Amino acid sequence: MATVSAAFIDGLARSLGSSQVSTDPGDLEAYGRDWTRIFPPAPSALVRPRTTAEVSEVLRECHRAGVPVVPSGGRTGLAGGAVASRGEVVLSLERMRTLGPVDTVGRTLAVEAGAVLEAVHRHAAEQGLTWPIDLAARGSCQIGGNIATNAGGVRVIRYGSTRQWVLGLTAVLADGTVLDMNRRLEKDNTGTDLRQLFIGSEGTLGVITQATLKLCPLPPEQQVMLFSVGSLADVLAFFAEARRGPFVISAFECFSQRCLDHVMREQRVEAPLGAAREFYVLLEVEGEPERLITWLESMLERSLVADGTLAQDSQQAQRLWAYREGITESLAPSFPHKNDVALPVHALAAFYADLEALLRQRYQGWDICVFGHVGDGNLHINFLKPSAMSVQDFVAHTSGADQALFALVQRHGGSISAEHGIGLLKKPYLKYTRSEPEIAMLRAVKAALDPRNILNPGKIF
Amino acid sequence: MATVSAAFIDGLARSLGSSQVSTDPGDLEAYGRDWTRIFPPAPSALVRPRTTAEVSEVLRECHRAGVPVVPSGGRTGLAGGAVASRGEVVLSLERMRTLGPVDTVGRTLAVEAGAVLEAVHRHAAEQGLTWPIDLAARGSCQIGGNIATNAGGVRVIRYGSTRQWVLGLTAVLADGTVLDMNRRLEKDNTGTDLRQLFIGSEGTLGVITQATLKLCPLPPEQQVMLFSVGSLADVLAFFAEARRGPFVISAFECFSQRCLDHVMREQRVEAPLGAAREFYVLLEVEGEPERLITWLESMLERSLVADGTLAQDSQQAQRLWAYREGITESLAPSFPHKNDVALPVHALAAFYADLEALLRQRYQGWDICVFGHVGDGNLHINFLKPSAMSVQDFVAHTSGADQALFALVQRHGGSISAEHGIGLLKKPYLKYTRSEPEIAMLRAVKAALDPRNILNPGKIF
Repeated sequence: MATVSAAFIDGLARSLGSSQVSTDPGDLEAYGRDWTRIFPPAPSALVRPRTTAEVSEVLRECHRAGVPVVPSGGRTGLAGGAVASRGEVVLSLERMRTLGPVDTVGRTLAVEAGAVLEAVHRHAAEQGLTWPIDLAARGSCQIGGNIATNAGGVRVIRYGSTRQWVLGLTAVLADGTVLDMNRRLEKDNTGTDLRQLFIGSEGTLGVITQATLKLCPLPPEQQVMLFSVGSLADVLAFFAEARRGPFVISAFECFSQRCLDHVMREQRVEAPLGAAREFYVLLEVEGEPERLITWLESMLERSLVADGTLAQDSQQAQRLWAYREGITESLAPSFPHKNDVALPVHALAAFYADLEALLRQRYQGWDICVFGHVGDGNLHINFLKPSAMSVQDFVAHTSGADQALFALVQRHGGSISAEHGIGLLKKPYLKYTRSEPEIAMLRAVKAALDPRNILNPGKIF
Repeated sequence: MATVSAAFIDGLARSLGSSQVSTDPGDLEAYGRDWTRIFPPAPSALVRPRTTAEVSEVLRECHRAGVPVVPSGGRTGLAGGAVASRGEVVLSLERMRTLGPVDTVGRTLAVEAGAVLEAVHRHAAEQGLTWPIDLAARGSCQIGGNIATNAGGVRVIRYGSTRQWVLGLTAVLADGTVLDMNRRLEKDNTGTDLRQLFIGSEGTLGVITQATLKLCPLPPEQQVMLFSVGSLADVLAFFAEARRGPFVISAFECFSQRCLDHVMREQRVEAPLGAAREFYVLLEVEGEPERLITWLESMLERSLVADGTLAQDSQQAQRLWAYREGITESLAPSFPHKNDVALPVHALAAFYADLEALLRQRYQGWDICVFGHVGDGNLHINFLKPSAMSVQDFVAHTSGADQALFALVQRHGGSISAEHGIGLLKKPYLKYTRSEPEIAMLRAVKAALDPRNILNPGKIF
C-alpha cells in the first residue's frame, strides 16, 4: 500500500490547479475500479490533466516522490488493469478528448487519449470513414485505453486488432519525458518501432496522451446469417468453407446451445432455428444476397450445417445478433466465472474436447458456456456455478479450475488472454503463456523505461 | 575494428563443426556486404548454423568473448544493415530454410528464417494462399531479413507491411537465450508484445531464427491502368478519387516524366500514353473490367487525368508495370543518389514543391527523379549527377543535399526512411526523424537487451 502524503497531493493541486485534483471519496471509489468489480478501490487521489504538458508535470512530480500512478481511461477493462486499490494516484485522461479534423486523403484522424470510442466513430462517419475497432463498451471506453490494451472485438477477423490502426502516438514516460511519436505515417522504418511497446502494455510503460488513428471507409450494409452446427470440429470445417465463400467475412461468431438456452430463458426469446444443435455460428459478410442464398443452400445440401437462415432486413439482422450479444447479460444471474483464451484455430476442437473431459473428471456438475470469435481462435469460456454449490465453495474452486484450464491452453499452444489483457486478474497465471525468458525480458524492458516502478505497478507481473 | 582471435574462430568450428564456419576470403567478401556496395566487406568469419540451438551456441560464445555479430539474410538491403566491415562474425541463417506444412484452416505457415521469400510464395500458392509481402528482391531475400527490416513493397496500400503478417517469432538474444514467441495466434494480449521489438530492428536486438507467417488467399487477376497527370497535387486529388472507385486498390504507384524519359531511353520503349504530363500513375485494382472502363472514362471526362489506358490482358498489364519496374535499372547509368522518404499523404505536394525550390536555389543543374508508393506517402527520390560535374564533386555534395532534403522531410512531419531502414547509410541522419527522447529510449532498450553491444553494433545509432 503506497502512502501518499497530503502535502504531496496539495503540491499537485498547486501545480495543476485545484479543479484538476480530487480526493472526494465518491471520485476515489468510482475512479479506482474497472468492470471487474473484484478489487476494492482505494486510490489516494484523482488527477485529471487537460494537456500532455500537464500529464508530464504530474508524472515528473510522482516520479520524484516515488508515488505510484494508475493511468485511467473509460475503466471498462475486464482484467483489473485500471484498478487502483493500493493508494495510487489515478491519472484520468477524460479531460483530454479533442478530436482533430478528419484527413480524408490520408484517411487519418488525430485525437486525444480521452476521446470516447463512440465519439470517434461518429466524427469519422461524417466523412464516410471509420476507425474499425468496435466493442460493446464503445459508449464509455476511451481511445487511450483501447490502445493501451490493444483492444480486439468481433471484427478482428476482418480488420485486425487496435495495433494495426494506430499510426502515431504521444506517450509520457514515467519521469515525465514526452515521447512524441505522433507522426501520421503509414511507413517509417527508422529503427525499433517504439509505438509498439506502448500498444497493449496496459499503462505500465508510459501514459498515452495523443494518437493518430488510421481510418477506413464505412463498410456497406452487411448480410447476417445464423447456422446450427453439430460440433466444434464441424464449426471449424464450416469456417474453412466460409472462407472460400463468395463474400468478405466481417464476423464469424460461435456460441454453444448452452449459451443459447440462457439467452432464450433470460430474454424470453424463441429458438432462432428449427434444428437445434450443440453449436451456432453467426456469420456476417459483405456480399450480394442472391449469391449468399445459393451458397447457403449448398451448405445445407452438403450437410455442413444442420440449419441456417439469412436475415432479410436490418431488423432481422439485429435479431440474429441479439442472440450472440445477449449472452454475457444472460449468463450474469448464473454466477459465471469468465476466461478469455486464444488457441491456434486448428487446435480449437482438440482443446475443447480436452476441456470437456477435464470438467467431467474433476468438476462434475459445473456447466460450461463457450462463445467467441472462432475465426481468430478466441474463445470466451464461462464456468457456471452448480446450483447446489455455495458461492463461497465455487469461488474457492475457480482458481484450481483456471490452472487446469490454462495448463490445457498451454499444452495446445494458446494464450490465457486473447483480448482482455493480464492486469491484476490474470497475473498469477502469466507463466502459462509467457516463458521464463519472456517474463525476464518484460521485466528488463519495464526496468529500462520505468526504473522506479511508478507506472501501474503490480500489474501484469 | 574488432579483433577476433584465430583461437576463438577455431573454438566456434569445434562447437558447430568445421563445415559451419568459414574464413575463406571469397566467403568473407560475399557475406560481408549487401546491395549498398559502398562499405568494404571485412568480417572475421562466416558461421552458418543449422538450428536455433546452434544459433544460441554461436551467440553464447560471442557474448562471452565480446565478439560482434552481424545477423545475415539475403543481404539485399539498401541501407547497409547487413554489412560486416569491422571484423565482425557474420551469422548467416541461409542453412535454416525449412518450410512447414501450410495450415489451411488457420492460414498460417511456420518457416525458418533463412527461407527465401519466393520459395515461401510458391509453397503457400500450392494451397491457394500467399504471404502478401512482395519485393523485387524476392528471389534472394530471406524471411528473417524481411521481418528484421519490416519490409514493405508495392502492395502496402492493400496489405500493410511485414509487421502485420507475422504471428509468431523465435529470436535468440545476445547472450544466447532463446525467446520462443512462436505461437501461431491472431490474438494474444498478455503484456507487452515482445515480437514487435524484433520486427524492424535490423538485427540489433536479437537474431530471428523461426517465424509463423499469417497467410491470405492468392488474389484474383488484377486490372492494371496507367494515367498521365499534370502535377503531384493532381496525383493526390486523383488518389482520393480512386479510393472511392468501384474496386479494391492493390497498388497506386507514381513516377515522374523524368523517370519515364530514362526508362524510354534505356529500355528503348515507346511512350505509354498519347498525352505526356509531369506525372504518371500506375493503378492496379481488383474489380470488374466493365465497371473500370466506365470509371476510367468518367475520370477523363472530368479532366482529373490527361490520358489513361486499361490493360486488356496480362501481357499488356506486364508492359505497363515494366515502365514502373524499369526505373531503378534505367537510372543506374546516370549515377543516382537515392533516398527513400515518407510523408503524411496530405503533405506530399507541399513537400515536393519545397524540394523543387531547394534544387533550383542550391543545386542548379541537378536532376531529380521521383517515384514511389504515393498511397502510403512513400517517395523514392533520386538526385542525378549533372553531366558536367565530376563523380567526386557530386559525391562530395550529396551529404549536404541529404541534410537539406531531410530537413524538409522533418518540417513536413515525415520519415527519412520509409522502407529501407537506417543501417549504416542513414545513421548520421536519424535525428531528422527520431527526437532526442526517442533516441535515448532506443538506446535504453538496446542496453537492456544487449548490454555488451555485440548484436550488429554501430547500426541505426
